[in-house]
Amino acid sequence: MSKIIVILFFDEIELKMNKKPLILVTNDDGITAPGIRKLIKLMNTIGDVVVVAPDSPQSGMGHAITIDSTLTCDKVKIDDEAQVEYQCSGTPADCVKLGVREVLKRKPDLCVSGINHGSNSSINVIYSGTMSAAIEAGIEGIPAIGFSLLDYSLEANFDNLEDDILKITQNVLDNGLPNGVVLNVNFPKSDVPFKGTKICRQAKGNWEEDFDKRVNPLGKEYYWLSGKFVNEDHGEDTDDWALANNYISIVPVQFDLTAHHFIQGLNSWDL
Amino acid sequence: MSKIIVILFFDEIELKMNKKPLILVTNDDGITAPGIRKLIKLMNTIGDVVVVAPDSPQSGMGHAITIDSTLTCDKVKIDDEAQVEYQCSGTPADCVKLGVREVLKRKPDLCVSGINHGSNSSINVIYSGTMSAAIEAGIEGIPAIGFSLLDYSLEANFDNLEDDILKITQNVLDNGLPNGVVLNVNFPKSDVPFKGTKICRQAKGNWEEDFDKRVNPLGKEYYWLSGKFVNEDHGEDTDDWALANNYISIVPVQFDLTAHHFIQGLNSWDL
Repeated sequence: MSKIIVILFFDEIELKMNKKPLILVTNDDGITAPGIRKLIKLMNTIGDVVVVAPDSPQSGMGHAITIDSTLTCDKVKIDDEAQVEYQCSGTPADCVKLGVREVLKRKPDLCVSGINHGSNSSINVIYSGTMSAAIEAGIEGIPAIGFSLLDYSLEANFDNLEDDILKITQNVLDNGLPNGVVLNVNFPKSDVPFKGTKICRQAKGNWEEDFDKRVNPLGKEYYWLSGKFVNEDHGEDTDDWALANNYISIVPVQFDLTAHHFIQGLNSWDL
Repeated sequence: MSKIIVILFFDEIELKMNKKPLILVTNDDGITAPGIRKLIKLMNTIGDVVVVAPDSPQSGMGHAITIDSTLTCDKVKIDDEAQVEYQCSGTPADCVKLGVREVLKRKPDLCVSGINHGSNSSINVIYSGTMSAAIEAGIEGIPAIGFSLLDYSLEANFDNLEDDILKITQNVLDNGLPNGVVLNVNFPKSDVPFKGTKICRQAKGNWEEDFDKRVNPLGKEYYWLSGKFVNEDHGEDTDDWALANNYISIVPVQFDLTAHHFIQGLNSWDL
């Protein structure tokens, strides 16, 4: 009996000493996008990596989930690196749900999403599939980070982000994150070294739509959503200010949407 | 010159006296759902109503927008009431964008979304197309309300909500809403009169997924997303508490997602 106890004891020590963090990687640009391939490579250097990512681009999907159709989640091999990978037919939020419940069967130590091809600063956080994946992980109690680069090109250069992504990730693994908070990290597009990292608030901004109205070959009108982003915020503590000034921006993001400051005001209404 | 000034003066008074609020109505269950038909009927009693709503159900679409395919927006006539209606191929957020920029060509005085068939309390606000439409309107500076009834049935009875929907709507028209805040209103499913209205915070809760794994006729595995909602919050100031106790819940909702309370904490990290 005592012998068995000793064996278990050594097994546990061995497990603890060898334990690398289990990291779930996802994105919204699809599993073959250069941004996620870079992120997987970086995460392989610090943890055991499992990828569950969309099989096709899912930009602008916000926090959509698939409730009225079916989902597939198939194991794939895309390169010869150490990670295990699954491609999923659903949205980024679906990928996190499937990854945690069906693929891993337990909470990973960290979820990282990205690297997104394009900005998720300011109000873009609301529309972003990348950030919704991170938020979904946060809702499930998993420390989570969304990474984005302000370059929509598929040829975007992610090489100069490596050190900062590793540093931010290691900080989250070492320090943890408060319940209900995930990180939204955006990198400026820059050919010169970044000036540093700024902890920011979300800039107040908005898209001014300019729908492109066309007529199809059958004579029917249709639209393309188009527009320009307008930053209405002149604060120097915002993500958009940091990015415009060649700083990396980190915004702590919460999913308690309650406008606590207006509860008292509403209580004075005649309801 | 003075004559012209007098004419303008009278015109303005006349416009002001006759002016009914312009109300944009949308939802996520689709333009023919009983919930939106009830909401349209109610709004017709207090304003000039324009409906821009999805041509098919869009539940669970969160804040998705359509950026990689085209949109249609067609005028339709569904009943003989006073409203003007358009059905749109996109998401609830698309409907608000198209409604404001292409259909109305100006900001309406109010946007109402719903009445949703099913709860949008607690964390459901994140996944909800109904609430994303209201939030999209809020982002565009339009006072907005999402209404939901805790009954998923298409035969849900909306009749006992009428007085409260009109009262809440009139309060928003009279008092306005602060910039950056919209309202999330949920009604309990109840056969007895509601106990009243509570101003609440979003309950801390989560969906525990239980994917239903099946095999298709070709032998391929697929999943249905399924699960149960778990309310981890024992506070009596939450929307879920109010609803469970037969109160109407109103949560003021914001779309500045910054976790301001953690900015100082992050500044102490080694970044």
